[in-house]
Amino acid sequence: MPAVLPIVHMATKANSVPYPTLIEVDPFIPADQQRGLHNRWHPDIPAFATVKPGEVFKIQCVDWTGAQIGNNDCSDDIKNVDLTKIHNLSGPIAIEGAEPGDCLVVDILDVTPFEKMPWGYTGIFELENGGGLFAREFNSRAAKAIWDFKGVYATSRHIPGVRFAGVSHPGLIGTAPSAELLATWNKREGELISQHLNAVPPVAFPPEPKGAYVGQDLPHEVMDKIAKEGARTVPGREHGGNCDIKNLSRGSRCYFPVFIKGANLSVGDLHFSQGDISFCGAIEMAGIITFSTSVIKGGIEKFALKQPIFLPSPVDPLYSAKLIFEGISVDYHGDGKQYNMDATVAYKQATLNAIAYLMKIGYTREQAYLLLSAAPIESHVGAVVDSPNACVTLALPLGIFEHDILPKEEGLTKKDFGQCAIRSDGVI
Amino acid sequence: MPAVLPIVHMATKANSVPYPTLIEVDPFIPADQQRGLHNRWHPDIPAFATVKPGEVFKIQCVDWTGAQIGNNDCSDDIKNVDLTKIHNLSGPIAIEGAEPGDCLVVDILDVTPFEKMPWGYTGIFELENGGGLFAREFNSRAAKAIWDFKGVYATSRHIPGVRFAGVSHPGLIGTAPSAELLATWNKREGELISQHLNAVPPVAFPPEPKGAYVGQDLPHEVMDKIAKEGARTVPGREHGGNCDIKNLSRGSRCYFPVFIKGANLSVGDLHFSQGDISFCGAIEMAGIITFSTSVIKGGIEKFALKQPIFLPSPVDPLYSAKLIFEGISVDYHGDGKQYNMDATVAYKQATLNAIAYLMKIGYTREQAYLLLSAAPIESHVGAVVDSPNACVTLALPLGIFEHDILPKEEGLTKKDFGQCAIRSDGVI
Amino acid sequence: MPAVLPIVHMATKANSVPYPTLIEVDPFIPADQQRGLHNRWHPDIPAFATVKPGEVFKIQCVDWTGAQIGNNDCSDDIKNVDLTKIHNLSGPIAIEGAEPGDCLVVDILDVTPFEKMPWGYTGIFELENGGGLFAREFNSRAAKAIWDFKGVYATSRHIPGVRFAGVSHPGLIGTAPSAELLATWNKREGELISQHLNAVPPVAFPPEPKGAYVGQDLPHEVMDKIAKEGARTVPGREHGGNCDIKNLSRGSRCYFPVFIKGANLSVGDLHFSQGDISFCGAIEMAGIITFSTSVIKGGIEKFALKQPIFLPSPVDPLYSAKLIFEGISVDYHGDGKQYNMDATVAYKQATLNAIAYLMKIGYTREQAYLLLSAAPIESHVGAVVDSPNACVTLALPLGIFEHDILPKEEGLTKKDFGQCAIRSDGVI
Amino acid sequence: MPAVLPIVHMATKANSVPYPTLIEVDPFIPADQQRGLHNRWHPDIPAFATVKPGEVFKIQCVDWTGAQIGNNDCSDDIKNVDLTKIHNLSGPIAIEGAEPGDCLVVDILDVTPFEKMPWGYTGIFELENGGGLFAREFNSRAAKAIWDFKGVYATSRHIPGVRFAGVSHPGLIGTAPSAELLATWNKREGELISQHLNAVPPVAFPPEPKGAYVGQDLPHEVMDKIAKEGARTVPGREHGGNCDIKNLSRGSRCYFPVFIKGANLSVGDLHFSQGDISFCGAIEMAGIITFSTSVIKGGIEKFALKQPIFLPSPVDPLYSAKLIFEGISVDYHGDGKQYNMDATVAYKQATLNAIAYLMKIGYTREQAYLLLSAAPIESHVGAVVDSPNACVTLALPLGIFEHDILPKEEGLTKKDFGQCAIRSDGVI
Repeated sequence: MPAVLPIVHMATKANSVPYPTLIEVDPFIPADQQRGLHNRWHPDIPAFATVKPGEVFKIQCVDWTGAQIGNNDCSDDIKNVDLTKIHNLSGPIAIEGAEPGDCLVVDILDVTPFEKMPWGYTGIFELENGGGLFAREFNSRAAKAIWDFKGVYATSRHIPGVRFAGVSHPGLIGTAPSAELLATWNKREGELISQHLNAVPPVAFPPEPKGAYVGQDLPHEVMDKIAKEGARTVPGREHGGNCDIKNLSRGSRCYFPVFIKGANLSVGDLHFSQGDISFCGAIEMAGIITFSTSVIKGGIEKFALKQPIFLPSPVDPLYSAKLIFEGISVDYHGDGKQYNMDATVAYKQATLNAIAYLMKIGYTREQAYLLLSAAPIESHVGAVVDSPNACVTLALPLGIFEHDILPKEEGLTKKDFGQCAIRSDGVI
Repeated sequence: MPAVLPIVHMATKANSVPYPTLIEVDPFIPADQQRGLHNRWHPDIPAFATVKPGEVFKIQCVDWTGAQIGNNDCSDDIKNVDLTKIHNLSGPIAIEGAEPGDCLVVDILDVTPFEKMPWGYTGIFELENGGGLFAREFNSRAAKAIWDFKGVYATSRHIPGVRFAGVSHPGLIGTAPSAELLATWNKREGELISQHLNAVPPVAFPPEPKGAYVGQDLPHEVMDKIAKEGARTVPGREHGGNCDIKNLSRGSRCYFPVFIKGANLSVGDLHFSQGDISFCGAIEMAGIITFSTSVIKGGIEKFALKQPIFLPSPVDPLYSAKLIFEGISVDYHGDGKQYNMDATVAYKQATLNAIAYLMKIGYTREQAYLLLSAAPIESHVGAVVDSPNACVTLALPLGIFEHDILPKEEGLTKKDFGQCAIRSDGVI
Repeated sequence: MPAVLPIVHMATKANSVPYPTLIEVDPFIPADQQRGLHNRWHPDIPAFATVKPGEVFKIQCVDWTGAQIGNNDCSDDIKNVDLTKIHNLSGPIAIEGAEPGDCLVVDILDVTPFEKMPWGYTGIFELENGGGLFAREFNSRAAKAIWDFKGVYATSRHIPGVRFAGVSHPGLIGTAPSAELLATWNKREGELISQHLNAVPPVAFPPEPKGAYVGQDLPHEVMDKIAKEGARTVPGREHGGNCDIKNLSRGSRCYFPVFIKGANLSVGDLHFSQGDISFCGAIEMAGIITFSTSVIKGGIEKFALKQPIFLPSPVDPLYSAKLIFEGISVDYHGDGKQYNMDATVAYKQATLNAIAYLMKIGYTREQAYLLLSAAPIESHVGAVVDSPNACVTLALPLGIFEHDILPKEEGLTKKDFGQCAIRSDGVI
Repeated sequence: MPAVLPIVHMATKANSVPYPTLIEVDPFIPADQQRGLHNRWHPDIPAFATVKPGEVFKIQCVDWTGAQIGNNDCSDDIKNVDLTKIHNLSGPIAIEGAEPGDCLVVDILDVTPFEKMPWGYTGIFELENGGGLFAREFNSRAAKAIWDFKGVYATSRHIPGVRFAGVSHPGLIGTAPSAELLATWNKREGELISQHLNAVPPVAFPPEPKGAYVGQDLPHEVMDKIAKEGARTVPGREHGGNCDIKNLSRGSRCYFPVFIKGANLSVGDLHFSQGDISFCGAIEMAGIITFSTSVIKGGIEKFALKQPIFLPSPVDPLYSAKLIFEGISVDYHGDGKQYNMDATVAYKQATLNAIAYLMKIGYTREQAYLLLSAAPIESHVGAVVDSPNACVTLALPLGIFEHDILPKEEGLTKKDFGQCAIRSDGVI
């Protein structure tokens, strides 16, 4: 009920208390020079700050590369990105009262860019440095699109003709693992790696001391332990992690399992927008996330919580009119080959069909590929039971285009949309 | 196409240019002490700033009362509000190239509260000072609810049990009238006033030099003219104005008729949220609005533009499950009286039905009244052709309640939600 | 739980029981020659059939005029329609166990046209015979559009270029009044009539023996009583009635107050589609409605049920992209007159603005008027507090048009859509 | 514009022409005794009927098993289903003017059950006879749920506590292949089979004369050719086919490539409802589908049409509130095993998480499994780029449950929902 405040009969600073920012970063400074960041998962990373359940607080985040990519018209920065320095997380934040076995309820109240940095980027990474869903098929060379954030919308000078509202969300968010859970991760992923020793790209990433970073003053032996054992931030896992779920967006509520005292929540890799699958990255940005939390005692048991569950946001963009592409698990190299119920092939096929359509209206293959990664595309798995073809759909929202792109009797109008940012040597 | 920028291979301040804020205000200082504000509509108010089509810019706004209401638990400030100082607008902003007969396209890119003032209020005004839709029926005494803004959501310690995403929008936005249009307004409203000379409350408000304010350095004679002739900001008119349309929200695009060179756009009375009808005010706030504009030459003729038209936002909150109340134009005083196709009576009846239902689950009449003004209620006019009863519906989104409020066989569970903020003398 | 059925290991007629049709009508025969219909509200009309709570059943309905309008290209049938024979209801249906004070829960499970009659109509009625929202302004002459029902969609040869999914619903549905309630209706409406004795059109309709019809074998004195006292079916009232609420559609659940033993539910005036306001009628059709019911004892008290409340359907058409027109309470005759907070004037103004826009893309005024009555238009009341102008919005779903009708820099493309059905003498 | 009809001034049979039913079936008679059905894809199957572009017509379909499953409380019929007789299609329908290289536009105007058969079923098939997504994990034994169709809704006595609106659609729809395309299918699928000769279940199904059926009078040599070469109906392919896409629902518009003169459209396997993945079947039904078509000359080239593309329906059920489960590609047998970016494992994991949650509120594992197959579940692929874990989400619409199933501080309330239909020997 009403808190007891001194009665002041007007709006003043005294009765207007901003929410605290628990971690402040500079989006223009490399991540490994800043406090409150870390890039490994480990139970021994101490909480950088502590909150009580119910408090609203803000966390600032660098972009996932830590300022390596610039707002310009050349993709050389993508080509040369240093991927040993990625996935910088802000945190951990301890929540009072959270204990192993509990459920940590996290309200993602807002996700915004920095006012001083109203832009982000989507990149196609080189086959040999970052890759992506079509890295091999396209023999990918670096390309990118810079997106300008205009309130709730993004537009790009590199992909004219579209404008869409962002499904802004953290690509990476999770609670800290317990020592046991961490050991499980390292064991199972280690086994996979040992089965695919020379895979290119690697099938998984073992703990790697090089580049490990915790932006706190830690005893040497603690930092060494973290560097030696800490799980890499690349995949999502039972605690959340790098799930890249577009609908874990501002306004959503997520229920995380708690593995250590305090829960130790960390977050990073903010996205202004993303489709259902990140082929080659979302619209990556630095920014600010606003949280509040609560704790449900014994929640793991109460809700059979093996991984996070969540409630989506009522303010996710609604574009009801869509053009939907189908894909089946066959012939995606144009060689007619039949794959056996492979949803990934079907997904790629649906995407190639969408790219072919977008090229009919004038986008280059690179622009189409970037657009499908950045915009609020929806992808559904239609069927994986009808042997031998898995069937997948990809839905393109019509409302994001400035012009009507529906199939018409007279065919499609091809416009000139230029090209996205490419390498300075012109190779695409 | 890509602008020519110097190539810098990382994110820096140099390649990260924030959007300019063209009008800055302090939400804690009375409006009539600040530059860039005005509270009359008049063609002779000079543009405070000028933009080119396509530019993104920000405008700061005080709350509609200009800091008269405090974040506290007593409604005496509502009781004593000085309504001669209301509807402070930020502007005008001139748009290069806009001329009479054109259409000014305004993208409302974002509407947010000040970070330093994360709260707003909904008030029930005294019958004798402000009134409201049920001022007479309820013999209204001042009451209020303070809403805390938590990212996209609002909650209130004065109305526990609900949380909803804001449909944030400017209550008041419009282009400047021409001298001819202003004269038309004053003439037609003057005639109405002259026909209802002693009406309480007044049917309309004539130009009133007292309290007229323009936060610019103007020659005396100009200021006098504005004060003497300037239209009051209370109603909406052909230029937009105080339309209180909740769906003119962040993400919407509005097409305004242009009446003078430069169009001279002004904006104020920001709302964090509001239902379809503002009974007794929305969730009022001070804050920041982000715009971009473009001009369509001859747009008034092209689009038969007698008043603004607009495209709603894809990020308006979506609550698909609703409980809908009907109202007909009869018996709303409980005296059985039949009204003749009166949509307003039907609307009030639907509202009283909703209030009665909310009281069954434990809200006080004041809380229910405030909630229906603040939350994203939808109201539709079902029929005004079936004599003698107009029929109106009011839809309550179920997703804003923490508990299931659906009709159940066992009846409704009544909880104790306390009471909203009331007067220090306890009168309600 | 599972009912005990004989185990038959395949699909057969024996284990496939269709739902019963409790009232059968022929949509091509005048209503006053058919059993199970009635056109007055009176507690003494006996139940035509009785159901148990939980049963699914079907009711067939004639169109509201009882087959007076034909599928042709001339509006003389509209011009000459006999309005003394309208609003034929199917029923009443008694529900076992329902008693005064209870709440009757009615699931409107489906609303479909007859397979043998896949069409309906929207009419503009003559100023002197039926009228409509703009009867005076337009000096209305009969016109109509025939709509073909193609599955979930309607199209019209009289209004080319649009296709939309129907919000199919009963325009008229309600429980029977008690003798007391009926007396209240007759008293209050009689008082209104006596205050406007010579109004054209009449402000309300008193009981009228002429044309009163109950399609059952009743003792003379009972039929005389019904004819003499029975309430006319024109308006909606506390029991539901002719509310013309488009969202009381198939898939919705409605909670009605019960006034007599058995509740005695009646239904008619089916609409394939309608906008938020029926200006000049919806898409009128004959058809079949599927119901199931349940009873909540003491529901009137439990839910403070003064009038029906309802839950809308999850399958109402979703067209998220809209073009919205504003209207204020001024100048709707083009004479500049100021009205005092008149929502109906504001509504008409918004509608006139929409009609003007539709005429820019090539529709005639009559086509535009018919389209706005038939299509799933949404209308919201923006504000009725900002004296002297009420503000109303009317939202046109963009997805119903075959072509892009958005405002464009180059203006709107005007096509030739012909004209709707008009009178044989060519007068419009 | 208006067709010339004789003017009849009322609704009559003469001016009310029902749409023709081109194929009539009896849903209670085995499919191989009925005309107009076939169960192989082959270009030499003659058109059973021919339509002009723009005509509206109806096609009746048996359920996919051809009446093998009964409306009863025992799953022995599922256990013993004869899968050599499945996927009976109604057709082919030739469209005048369609030629290879064209695009056939098909409007799926409606999909309804037979009035005389208002029920359908969802089955869990035996590991050894039909299987399903979890056949191995669950060592599946036959179980089923009978669903009653109540207008737009389905409920089941075997899964109490839920009710949902159907996304009614054809599971199987496509144009006929050319001889070349058919040869391609047989070749590529044959190669896959030859690589997995003894796979259980088989990876694909080669042409199989046994059980091949065409319900037309054909010369022996034609029927033999069809039986010998005809492609099986199990998978989706470039022409559409058994894609099981829930959003190809009534109200959708689909663009098919045309491979032979007339296009030769066939359809079957109607579903009253289905989630995004059919684990173990949808809600299978017999019923009626309403179509209209048009032809876009050269559409394959115009739209880069490798497979069908489609526009979803505006009347697909909208349940905005959801509870979403995440799944990653690890440990789905509880053995901690790490899979390498396997979206199918991630999908299964998300599903197991949802089943575990549903069991907390009282459903049996079988009920939960059936429910997730039948209800309008949405599944999105979150990420397949973050090695080694693919991440998938499964969204459960909250509005389909009679009770609030949200996570609550006090945990979940476990109810007794009984059990679904199981085998007469009680084995589950």
